[in-house]
Amino acid sequence: MNKSIQEFNEYRSKMNDLILSKDNLVIKRLFNLDTNTYAEGALTAKTKEMLGLVASMVLRCDDCIKYHLGKCHEQELTTEEVYEIFAVANIVGGTIVIPHTRRAAEYWEELIQA
Amino acid sequence: MNKSIQEFNEYRSKMNDLILSKDNLVIKRLFNLDTNTYAEGALTAKTKEMLGLVASMVLRCDDCIKYHLGKCHEQELTTEEVYEIFAVANIVGGTIVIPHTRRAAEYWEELIQA
Amino acid sequence: MNKSIQEFNEYRSKMNDLILSKDNLVIKRLFNLDTNTYAEGALTAKTKEMLGLVASMVLRCDDCIKYHLGKCHEQELTTEEVYEIFAVANIVGGTIVIPHTRRAAEYWEELIQA
Amino acid sequence: MNKSIQEFNEYRSKMNDLILSKDNLVIKRLFNLDTNTYAEGALTAKTKEMLGLVASMVLRCDDCIKYHLGKCHEQELTTEEVYEIFAVANIVGGTIVIPHTRRAAEYWEELIQA
Amino acid sequence: MNKSIQEFNEYRSKMNDLILSKDNLVIKRLFNLDTNTYAEGALTAKTKEMLGLVASMVLRCDDCIKYHLGKCHEQELTTEEVYEIFAVANIVGGTIVIPHTRRAAEYWEELIQA
Amino acid sequence: MNKSIQEFNEYRSKMNDLILSKDNLVIKRLFNLDTNTYAEGALTAKTKEMLGLVASMVLRCDDCIKYHLGKCHEQELTTEEVYEIFAVANIVGGTIVIPHTRRAAEYWEELIQA
Repeated sequence: MNKSIQEFNEYRSKMNDLILSKDNLVIKRLFNLDTNTYAEGALTAKTKEMLGLVASMVLRCDDCIKYHLGKCHEQELTTEEVYEIFAVANIVGGTIVIPHTRRAAEYWEELIQA
Repeated sequence: MNKSIQEFNEYRSKMNDLILSKDNLVIKRLFNLDTNTYAEGALTAKTKEMLGLVASMVLRCDDCIKYHLGKCHEQELTTEEVYEIFAVANIVGGTIVIPHTRRAAEYWEELIQA
Repeated sequence: MNKSIQEFNEYRSKMNDLILSKDNLVIKRLFNLDTNTYAEGALTAKTKEMLGLVASMVLRCDDCIKYHLGKCHEQELTTEEVYEIFAVANIVGGTIVIPHTRRAAEYWEELIQA
Repeated sequence: MNKSIQEFNEYRSKMNDLILSKDNLVIKRLFNLDTNTYAEGALTAKTKEMLGLVASMVLRCDDCIKYHLGKCHEQELTTEEVYEIFAVANIVGGTIVIPHTRRAAEYWEELIQA
Repeated sequence: MNKSIQEFNEYRSKMNDLILSKDNLVIKRLFNLDTNTYAEGALTAKTKEMLGLVASMVLRCDDCIKYHLGKCHEQELTTEEVYEIFAVANIVGGTIVIPHTRRAAEYWEELIQA
Repeated sequence: MNKSIQEFNEYRSKMNDLILSKDNLVIKRLFNLDTNTYAEGALTAKTKEMLGLVASMVLRCDDCIKYHLGKCHEQELTTEEVYEIFAVANIVGGTIVIPHTRRAAEYWEELIQA
């Protein structure tokens, strides 16, 4: 696997473990709920990951974008589909989203070449 | 049609006309581009309207939420689907999105009863 | 009770009931979790309501501000304490918070005169 | 003067007086500092009001937008200039700024017709 | 002292000095006011630092979070208290706050082990 | 040219090329529109770059800030003028803007010493 993908996943895992080790009940439940949110339902898991991606982009959170790009890749989105999500995010959120789109584009290349 | 839906649409139209009458080229092109963004493509128009809705919710823009709810209604989303979008928005964006979800829930009832 | 306080509470209740009636599990759990978050713990309920208020102010959500002001009133915060929270919110969040502070100040007067 | 302009100014004044009457030193100094920020300096007062307007628009604060539109009107900005500021705000901040631009456009008409 | 804490503090100091050396009166006064905001008053300095931390988290500013974590450590907050602040921030601000919570959790460990 | 300025520009160029190579029409048009937005018009290009800078600062996008600082340098803004823009951004956006101002101040020094 690509080194930057691996580093991202490892840091994420390690810190999630640290956070959960502190036994704060609200945080633990929120982490659980977060997983449930993207489960297959009336909407497909694929659609929900697209929703998670566009929400992360307009809120301009690079780590969240990477996480959902990874999930979109698992859901077998095409590059054309991913760029249509980028387009919605950039139109709704404005050019302030462009720098995040650059980093997202770079990470997507890593994912499809992994 | 429900009065609040009609008022929303009329104010929106009237002010868009006012803005466009000033002939600012950048704004005119952005308005055009906005329409193109949600056109059928690699992703369906239905999916794109869902993306527009969740983006509007996490950015907490009531008018944008109403607009995309109207479009989601035209795309024949079910109430269950709409509430799964609400769920993603509330989890990603937090409880700060709840007051906007209340107004969205009210407007959705108006749309499905119209 | 003051009419604007009553109207705020009634609309909030009515729309929460509407939302919960749709049986979206993620939203129901988030609503539950929201209540737990402000329960007495290592920090007092009073401190947590202050945290909720300042967070609502810097995120500029008028309804969330009203809700937490109501809770701060129940927790018997003094006006001087409330204004020190306003001060932190305005310094961290900037003058963009001032219009929300005006509405918060108005609502606080209604609460203490109710 | 137009009724909506007058109401905006009166509510603003009345609530500022209420806030300042509570003698919170940090808030009082911030209010003072806010006034100084837009004073003539290396940049003209006109330029600074334009900066205040565009900042208010991308942060999507309707009251702040109205306030700075009023100031821009005092500084004798033309409609064409105001719409170029609207254009920057909509491109940087995205279509999420459009509903605020509608209300800004309406208020600007009231100002120039007052 | 831990290297990452030291680097953070040194960069912060050095750049504050650079900024203040330019003698912009508004910025100088804001920096002063910022210090006064967290002084003991009707609320304790400890409470105010908690307010600063939660505000920084929902606004998702990593440097501000680090700064207030440092101050919370000086105020002798326990890990349990800090995680209850994290909980409020994550519930109010949503899962978009999680990546910042990861970095906050890492920095807190450095502070308590320093 | 300073290394960090060069690196910023090169990454920006390279990723823009990657994004544009995917032929998403909406994104291509938005990139074009972005360039047009800052062209000489009723407002000078210099004024528009100042608007772009202040908007980037209150939205707290470091890359956007660097980009507009570069453009402001080309437009021959003085350090005093740049710091008055910093002042507006910090007052409107609050102390949450300070960490971005630190990085902006550092980058401005690099630009004027380049």
